[in-house]
Amino acid sequence: MKTYSKRKRYTPEKYIEGILKQNRNILSQSITLIESHLESDRALAEKIIERLLPYTGNSKRIGITGSTGVGKSTFIETFGQLLTHQNQKVAILAIDPSSPKSGGSIMGDKTRMQKLSQNPNVFIRPSPAGRDIGGITQKSRECMLLCEAAGFDVILIETTGAGQSEIAVKDMVDCFLLLMIGGAGDELQGLKKGIMELADIIAITKSDGENIERNLQLQTRLESITPLFQPNTPEWPTKVLTCSAMTNKNIDTIWELLQNYFNTVEKNGWLHTNRKQQQLSWMYSTIKTGLERRFYGNHNIKNLLPQITEQVSNSKISAYQAAKALLDTFC
Amino acid sequence: MKTYSKRKRYTPEKYIEGILKQNRNILSQSITLIESHLESDRALAEKIIERLLPYTGNSKRIGITGSTGVGKSTFIETFGQLLTHQNQKVAILAIDPSSPKSGGSIMGDKTRMQKLSQNPNVFIRPSPAGRDIGGITQKSRECMLLCEAAGFDVILIETTGAGQSEIAVKDMVDCFLLLMIGGAGDELQGLKKGIMELADIIAITKSDGENIERNLQLQTRLESITPLFQPNTPEWPTKVLTCSAMTNKNIDTIWELLQNYFNTVEKNGWLHTNRKQQQLSWMYSTIKTGLERRFYGNHNIKNLLPQITEQVSNSKISAYQAAKALLDTFC
Repeated sequence: MKTYSKRKRYTPEKYIEGILKQNRNILSQSITLIESHLESDRALAEKIIERLLPYTGNSKRIGITGSTGVGKSTFIETFGQLLTHQNQKVAILAIDPSSPKSGGSIMGDKTRMQKLSQNPNVFIRPSPAGRDIGGITQKSRECMLLCEAAGFDVILIETTGAGQSEIAVKDMVDCFLLLMIGGAGDELQGLKKGIMELADIIAITKSDGENIERNLQLQTRLESITPLFQPNTPEWPTKVLTCSAMTNKNIDTIWELLQNYFNTVEKNGWLHTNRKQQQLSWMYSTIKTGLERRFYGNHNIKNLLPQITEQVSNSKISAYQAAKALLDTFC
Repeated sequence: MKTYSKRKRYTPEKYIEGILKQNRNILSQSITLIESHLESDRALAEKIIERLLPYTGNSKRIGITGSTGVGKSTFIETFGQLLTHQNQKVAILAIDPSSPKSGGSIMGDKTRMQKLSQNPNVFIRPSPAGRDIGGITQKSRECMLLCEAAGFDVILIETTGAGQSEIAVKDMVDCFLLLMIGGAGDELQGLKKGIMELADIIAITKSDGENIERNLQLQTRLESITPLFQPNTPEWPTKVLTCSAMTNKNIDTIWELLQNYFNTVEKNGWLHTNRKQQQLSWMYSTIKTGLERRFYGNHNIKNLLPQITEQVSNSKISAYQAAKALLDTFC
């Protein structure tokens, strides 16, 4: 029986070459290295990413968010197909701090997007596991870079409307698309205000049949609110439109809007400025995760941690004293 | 004009003595040290907390959560008064990752709880500012310890229903009280499933007048769902009840339930076991924040950071390379 840790690894060159040749299998395996808890895998992943950096940055990075029930998967299934018909290669990544108890990922089930997952121009990757949004985001960002090096034109980063993850995604993407539905009650909408302010485009989904009327009402309301927001992006006040993945209504319009958006922000320089700012925020979050990796990878900490943990468990020392002792050992 | 940084500081002994003598003014000032960005303040705060640790751990730590609109402030205003009538000294702390754009705290406005804020047996402290839930939680935990040392019997930790902050609060408290309202729509309830699983008691608020009927419907529904949850606490299946801060309905029952809860978990040892587990989780989060504090407080990093930041801003080096260079300098 082969165990996970004994799985064969290639040389960095082999991964790099494979990704640049758009080998999906190698891309998948490289992402597995990013998500691995083995130090040797992490070190290998870092080498690969560093060497691939010159080949990154050429895709449209788009965040897609919305609460449970707005039909994110269905939207992405339809929207993704439209993109591939327009000769776009699409990578779909998810960010989802897991449910606290089950530990499972809500999203990322490929069976949700049946047609899309069989499309050779589409790459779907579920959210990395974990409760720590910082760690998840860091890994997702690294996945994004690999997908860019592998030549994907559009990266869709999917997340649920829970708050913290949207803010994290905002720091990764060029454009933020929020999905909403009409008739979901003012409280739900209220919760979303912070998220609404992040949106460049708000698409009101499921605008077919009985929903058309109430979705138009929401559109009217949003169009009266959004001009009051401080704009995210120069020359781009938040756009609001209705759409339907079932009837294909406005799905193409959303892609046109997104292309307009990218034309606007490329021309006025904001795309460049924003990415530069994101680089700084990436630096800080790489430092944060790097500090922890180095700390727990440190030889002395590894030796000391078991006994300190036991002392805390037996109430011999406080969490505070334990942390201090370990930190003093490390730095 | 006095600037903040030049504000007078006392010796650690003075703060420690003041807190143990239940001097609220000194308690407030000590919490300000915890929230300060000045290194000297942080160092002072750490000394104070370390010395006060033996006096902590004697209060009932209760988390209270619920979405915008359930009437958290009104509930706490009424519930807090009941507690003080029962001779309980009550500290109310908030955890609230700020709205991404405004940077302001949604909660913590003392004017929300007018009567309570004037009550000499009540101490109210708004949420520490910041976007980083880990940092906010760490500070709130330290505030909690100081309040315990200052002799408060009950600590209420208030948070909004946004997801990540509840999970953080769960790691701090003995008991988790979730506020809900009827008729808020299935989507809203759906969002809350992960949170519902954390609840020891669910109180359906605003059960007066027109709301009574729909709140009873929600109660019936919850009572059919909650037995399916994996119980948080041995011998304590999640309890569901309706209440009203306006008519005082069941506010006393909630306090009785909470007392039963604490009797149960003290007797069966879970309170002790849970706090021991929390100590470990506190140790890990203290390490996390400690690593960053030491990193950014490091002399070499302080010298190097401005030029590295500039190189990242000018796209001379990548975020990745920058982080690596800084980490290599530090450890």
